[in-house]
Amino acid sequence: MQDGDFKALKIDQGRMMDSLHSICSFGTGKRWGSAPTETGMSRLALSDSDKQARDWFVDTTTALGCAINLDAMGNIFAVRPGRQSGLATFAGSHLDTQPSGGRYDGILGILAGIEMLRVLEDHHIETEFPVGVVNWTNEEGARFPISMVSSGVWAEDIPLARAHNLKEVGGGKATVKSELERIGYLGTMPASYKSMPMAAHFELHIEQGPILETERQKVGVVHGVQAYRWFTVEVQGRDAHTGTTPLANRADAMLLAARLITHAHRLATTHSAMAATGILTLTPGSTNTIPGTVRFALDVRAPADATVDAMEADLKADFAALAAGENIGGLLDGSTPGKPLNISWQTDSVSPATLFHADCIAAVRAAAEAVTGDKGLVRDMTSGAGHDSVYASRRCPTSMIFVPSRNGVSHNPEEYTSPEDCAVGAEVLLQSVLRYDRLRSMGATGSG
Amino acid sequence: MQDGDFKALKIDQGRMMDSLHSICSFGTGKRWGSAPTETGMSRLALSDSDKQARDWFVDTTTALGCAINLDAMGNIFAVRPGRQSGLATFAGSHLDTQPSGGRYDGILGILAGIEMLRVLEDHHIETEFPVGVVNWTNEEGARFPISMVSSGVWAEDIPLARAHNLKEVGGGKATVKSELERIGYLGTMPASYKSMPMAAHFELHIEQGPILETERQKVGVVHGVQAYRWFTVEVQGRDAHTGTTPLANRADAMLLAARLITHAHRLATTHSAMAATGILTLTPGSTNTIPGTVRFALDVRAPADATVDAMEADLKADFAALAAGENIGGLLDGSTPGKPLNISWQTDSVSPATLFHADCIAAVRAAAEAVTGDKGLVRDMTSGAGHDSVYASRRCPTSMIFVPSRNGVSHNPEEYTSPEDCAVGAEVLLQSVLRYDRLRSMGATGSG
Repeated sequence: MQDGDFKALKIDQGRMMDSLHSICSFGTGKRWGSAPTETGMSRLALSDSDKQARDWFVDTTTALGCAINLDAMGNIFAVRPGRQSGLATFAGSHLDTQPSGGRYDGILGILAGIEMLRVLEDHHIETEFPVGVVNWTNEEGARFPISMVSSGVWAEDIPLARAHNLKEVGGGKATVKSELERIGYLGTMPASYKSMPMAAHFELHIEQGPILETERQKVGVVHGVQAYRWFTVEVQGRDAHTGTTPLANRADAMLLAARLITHAHRLATTHSAMAATGILTLTPGSTNTIPGTVRFALDVRAPADATVDAMEADLKADFAALAAGENIGGLLDGSTPGKPLNISWQTDSVSPATLFHADCIAAVRAAAEAVTGDKGLVRDMTSGAGHDSVYASRRCPTSMIFVPSRNGVSHNPEEYTSPEDCAVGAEVLLQSVLRYDRLRSMGATGSG
Repeated sequence: MQDGDFKALKIDQGRMMDSLHSICSFGTGKRWGSAPTETGMSRLALSDSDKQARDWFVDTTTALGCAINLDAMGNIFAVRPGRQSGLATFAGSHLDTQPSGGRYDGILGILAGIEMLRVLEDHHIETEFPVGVVNWTNEEGARFPISMVSSGVWAEDIPLARAHNLKEVGGGKATVKSELERIGYLGTMPASYKSMPMAAHFELHIEQGPILETERQKVGVVHGVQAYRWFTVEVQGRDAHTGTTPLANRADAMLLAARLITHAHRLATTHSAMAATGILTLTPGSTNTIPGTVRFALDVRAPADATVDAMEADLKADFAALAAGENIGGLLDGSTPGKPLNISWQTDSVSPATLFHADCIAAVRAAAEAVTGDKGLVRDMTSGAGHDSVYASRRCPTSMIFVPSRNGVSHNPEEYTSPEDCAVGAEVLLQSVLRYDRLRSMGATGSG
């Protein structure tokens, strides 16, 4: 098969989108429009609906001639044999979603991988080496609060025990391991790149940002991922009655937390970084009790590791000063000095800036230019979000493909990418995998 | 019985405190010290533990010769007959607690009432008119978010249906009515001052503030209660991915809520009022999703109604301006302008400033001076917290008695009042009720 032959391999847009919407019946979320597919998704990792999606994935890839490899984190590697044995080149992403997520984040990457397998079957194509599709567990970190945890275990960057013992957020007792057991997806194969090495990992994903749409471009060739760090900050004050405790006698954990969150945004502005709080819990949680304890998540991101380091240092210093009653940034102007409070920090996740592999980036660019027929529609990008490709890239050549997100919206039921854009992305994925397979067959990669 | 006879009526401190700590075995909360009684309480209204406390109350007062009157809000009026028929003079308070509350708030008032009944039995005293003890339902408003809701229904200031349909906080499905039915405390008597009129209502309560302790005084003669108002503020932005959404594209509901809470404190300082947020929930609730919706409680208090009115007006104007991106009080200094958000307000509870009845205040003062033997140990006070006496005072003569709170702490497991101070308060309560009964027998009150 020559380079030109790839052009004959068209993915079937209707078939792929039908499959995508069909498995979105498992864990359907909030409705935002009147059409049948105008709902979001709420398919938390290892929930009953995630099990349904997994069962579908296993059945479908098995029917397409794949062997299933299930590891101790519930990662599912479906592998289609090649002309010769060897490591498989994978398309990978995830089937879990945010609690109030959409139909494309993660899901598109898996469905495009399955469409790839179908096209190969349709055309009776035998690749040189095996190719496969991998579904990574709990990418979102929404239910079990470490994102990309299972590719992290696979990369041996996160210890298995820590991942298995992760408790679900919100005070429930379920752990990753107990839920893997419950839904029947606790594999016997070790979760490790040593047991399940990959020749390469390609991931098609929605951009989740506004750039491609704004620039009227179709495909992002992703060179890497920005750094991020997740913290849990605990503010410790003193519970007290709201009616009888003068402002000056209060150690109001919610008031301090409000100032800290306000300040974190200012520091992000100063550093050209990003900061956000998506989880906050207070106790005891009563209208007429000043809360003694507030815990909140802090998500900090920047393109360079050094910027995140500087943010962390400033956040820690300024939060401590604010807790002690120091008037940082005028936040205490016009306020009543209260009692001092304590702050403790926990680092939940550290994801350094990531650079993808030149061979994979080149394969994606060549595929994108061939599929779109117009270099002007293809853009080099850095990902704002973390993806399983971050951990994959530590143990095998990796790159990603982005397609446009309407209004840049993601982690929201209204997340949307047009069927045409999904199809372009899927075709770029297919061709990237085939190009990489050919590259390996020519002995032209470092990892064949 | 002459005035001087009252002095012979000593309450039994040991017996009262034993009973108090004994019923604190129903719904025991967080431990803060090593002694058996050094725990807080977590006895939410109409919970299983509240049912246990109620059963004990009914059994004990029945054994002391009282008739039980149960109304449709689960208020329990235990009435001991007098020499002649007529309305009863009540000691009242509540047995429910905050989720992380102490052993004295409400509980002391009920136990002192029961000790009053025991002393009357011990001395075979027949009062002129009936006397009684009333346990009001869900005073705290912690589980069902209207405080003093059942005395409010009794006063016909809160409609029964609204109270019955109140849902428990935190998203559960239980209502006041369903829980009253479940624990067997849905009475058939209408919850109304018309069905269950009271001659007067006296309430012994811990101060829940630092004043008596700081001033080394023993008894507060309470002349009234400050005004307060409870709101729920909903901030509506847009869910978005934390990694891919530039600060300028965000409508971050948590960031705005943080600024609003910071600002509410400043307005409270300006107005010499108080403001606090004790409940905050955000959705969807994921570290890497900027929350689109935040709801938080706002508790606003001041001694005068006009001050609370002014606070409410300023809060509404400034919150709207901040949501629109206006830089109120420099809160947006050094920040990245984002997308506008919407704010909606709900008023959950309005409690105007309250003035108690001169006859009851006089009875409490006379009793306090007689019991302490020293005017210097007695102080006129305004209550910072709302109490069932607020609603009681709308339909019958009312006053309250305060005793010191260690460190001014309340709504906290470490809430503490010494046994000696509890006993002084209970004796003042007993004598206030007897003095008021005598006043009625002399035809000297407006309500005999």
